[in-house]
Amino acid sequence: MELRIPGPTPCPPAVLEAMTKQMINHRGREFSQIFTEITARLKDFFQTKGDVLLLTGSGTGGLEAAVANCFSPGDKVLAVSNGAFGDRFAAITQVFGAQVQRLNFPWGAAVDPEGVRQALNENPDVKGVLVTHNETSTGITNDLQSISAVVKEFDKLLLVDAISSLGCVDLPMDAWGCDVVVNCSQKGWMIPPGLAMIGINERGWQAVSQAKMPRFYWDFNAAKQYAAKGQTPWTPAVSLCYALLAALEMMAQEGMPNIFARHARVGRTAREGVKSLGLTLFADEAYASNTVTAINAPTGVNGDDLRRLLEKEYQVVLAEGQGKLVGRIFRIGHLGWVSEENIQRVMEALAAALPQVGFTPTRVAASS
Amino acid sequence: MELRIPGPTPCPPAVLEAMTKQMINHRGREFSQIFTEITARLKDFFQTKGDVLLLTGSGTGGLEAAVANCFSPGDKVLAVSNGAFGDRFAAITQVFGAQVQRLNFPWGAAVDPEGVRQALNENPDVKGVLVTHNETSTGITNDLQSISAVVKEFDKLLLVDAISSLGCVDLPMDAWGCDVVVNCSQKGWMIPPGLAMIGINERGWQAVSQAKMPRFYWDFNAAKQYAAKGQTPWTPAVSLCYALLAALEMMAQEGMPNIFARHARVGRTAREGVKSLGLTLFADEAYASNTVTAINAPTGVNGDDLRRLLEKEYQVVLAEGQGKLVGRIFRIGHLGWVSEENIQRVMEALAAALPQVGFTPTRVAASS
Repeated sequence: MELRIPGPTPCPPAVLEAMTKQMINHRGREFSQIFTEITARLKDFFQTKGDVLLLTGSGTGGLEAAVANCFSPGDKVLAVSNGAFGDRFAAITQVFGAQVQRLNFPWGAAVDPEGVRQALNENPDVKGVLVTHNETSTGITNDLQSISAVVKEFDKLLLVDAISSLGCVDLPMDAWGCDVVVNCSQKGWMIPPGLAMIGINERGWQAVSQAKMPRFYWDFNAAKQYAAKGQTPWTPAVSLCYALLAALEMMAQEGMPNIFARHARVGRTAREGVKSLGLTLFADEAYASNTVTAINAPTGVNGDDLRRLLEKEYQVVLAEGQGKLVGRIFRIGHLGWVSEENIQRVMEALAAALPQVGFTPTRVAASS
Repeated sequence: MELRIPGPTPCPPAVLEAMTKQMINHRGREFSQIFTEITARLKDFFQTKGDVLLLTGSGTGGLEAAVANCFSPGDKVLAVSNGAFGDRFAAITQVFGAQVQRLNFPWGAAVDPEGVRQALNENPDVKGVLVTHNETSTGITNDLQSISAVVKEFDKLLLVDAISSLGCVDLPMDAWGCDVVVNCSQKGWMIPPGLAMIGINERGWQAVSQAKMPRFYWDFNAAKQYAAKGQTPWTPAVSLCYALLAALEMMAQEGMPNIFARHARVGRTAREGVKSLGLTLFADEAYASNTVTAINAPTGVNGDDLRRLLEKEYQVVLAEGQGKLVGRIFRIGHLGWVSEENIQRVMEALAAALPQVGFTPTRVAASS
């Protein structure tokens, strides 16, 4: 089976093998060593001298944690969105009692930093800004560096959903001035879901010290306090920690620049591949994501019918459209444990399947 | 290594092996089948015709979820506690804005149902009651059936922390009238940490429909809605679902009465073992837990020194005292994948180690 969704991503054999290790005492020395090494290695990938906290939960839990630790009920928060995950970040913030000022861009378009500047000019009382680095629902990588520069012109707190970007594409958290960066395990790290990682700098900690939204399980102060002794406040997902350490060792061997270059190559291969079949990209290619590609279903074709056919007859699993895009697009995940050969297999399957749903590819994929 | 802490518990080889299965689409048919079978089997063990929700997080996350879904800020909640975990349940409820009325019993004693009746008489405006079934910090199993009967006399909502009991000792949720029952993966289920399970009945759902505490990631309505299609609202800990299914199959083969009887035998073996060494139990033996035993450190001996010695020289890992009991007690976990032989190994190690810390056992353990 060729699993090509934007998470969970396939796990390398070394990662799966790591999870066969027996449980240990999460309050003992061995776990503390594993935890400490994971944290140090994560900081390399977050490119930060700040803290990286490890939480047991999935990505949405990480987003909730970031919100609940940084804001107080009634705080005005600017939620910038150009897709389903930007909307989710905003929804969480609203549920926890913030006054959410939404700044929406069309799905498939990138966030315009100029629009962020205007919104901040019009809303000087904003406490912080929420931005999605890579919008998984549409396949757009927003220009986070420029957006962050604008947010910092106004000296505002910046929370970044980097769930499907960090570890795959460059995100120098400190250099770009991102205060709180949320990530999770089943994306670039090539391990199963169940862990969230939070990068946080001094500015982020200042916000935590003032924030009054309720949190207990997600409490960053508790996480920091226990991290000092190589522990987590509540029992961590031990087997996923084993997996993460194995994956981080693999990633350190490959090296960050090589990982980013591989994702860039694979992303290009995916986009060129679908275009060569006569399909069209859903999102603005100038901001095309190197971790996920969204493709318009051909006219008259339901994207979900195509996906079901690909899975049943070609053992290729692609992702559905989300929210208003159900059936209208389908998505190829190409992050984590992925190479050009994986994408080639997807293109071969598409070339064979498309005629079966009534669409004639302009030409078969390159290697067929 | 003999890991004898009250979670994470050791995992059987079949469980570890199950986690080597490759990732699949959590929105696809195969995951849906796994999820549906897990849920059905969990309902057998929760002994409920209500719902069992599967959340990605650890046990404390499950407690937070129960609180946030059942209450509104300002609600008066009676928090019954006789240990560290009862206190934690109360603390979460307070953090989320409830007016917490505490009813504390001494650590090492059981909750007295008569005390609960008196508290409810004195606080007729209480919205719900929090109770810990098995207090892991002291090794007491509270008489949940009697406590629940009292709570139901007053027609109040009952939330139960059953984290270290359910799946090990009898807890017929429906028969006893427990409305919301919280459990998690690294205890009786013999799998790694990272999943929480919530049993909830009709009365529980009524509370959810009125509750106004903020929740997004933990939202029970979202979990129920997605469960209807065999999914979770957010990406689940897929590898732990594989593990859980494998464990549930093993548990179904052994059978619930046999599992409970095994825990009763093992618990008795632990208590008789330590007493035969001349050690004393910390908690009231009339309410002794069959999943964890707390033992007083001998006079003049620091329990943590003894634990370190046991780990270093005898490869036996026991748990520390929590909160005010640090160093004063040590604990033996005997839940999940455990038999009398495991306890016998602990007793042999204790018999050998105790003289090294200056305590002469009254006699060596039976089999030595």
